[in-house]
Amino acid sequence: MLRATVFVRYREGVDDPEGKHIKKALNLLGFSQVRDVGVAKTYEILLDVDGEEEAEKLVEEMARKLLVNPVIHEYEVQYERV
Amino acid sequence: MLRATVFVRYREGVDDPEGKHIKKALNLLGFSQVRDVGVAKTYEILLDVDGEEEAEKLVEEMARKLLVNPVIHEYEVQYERV
Repeated sequence: MLRATVFVRYREGVDDPEGKHIKKALNLLGFSQVRDVGVAKTYEILLDVDGEEEAEKLVEEMARKLLVNPVIHEYEVQYERV
Repeated sequence: MLRATVFVRYREGVDDPEGKHIKKALNLLGFSQVRDVGVAKTYEILLDVDGEEEAEKLVEEMARKLLVNPVIHEYEVQYERV
């Protein structure tokens, strides 16, 4: 088994409204040290595969078909044997 | 400046409906190797502070006041100087 951890975040230059709202909320709560907040989503996917090569192919296809919108998102993946 | 990356995920035993739906969707798309999917949220917070100790105190307070619901979430933080 392999665990693929897929981090999906907004591309540089794409508006991140949730991050902006959280920054504003933190500033209003008194956290004046907060300069910027970005929000990303992480998918921890448990895969019944043997090798990392097979997992990489699968995750790339999953990203394309379901998890990632390439117009606004970029993503990176970490693999861990479990 | 420090960047604090806060990973917020469901505690063990807490239902993760979004993860379940994504698992089901991936299985339906033909990815039969997917055994489990967990969804986590990541906040990348840029902090205007000098030391990691100060950042740790601040992030703990932010988590308590806004980012984390301790009944259902657990979280971990990574710090990086930028």
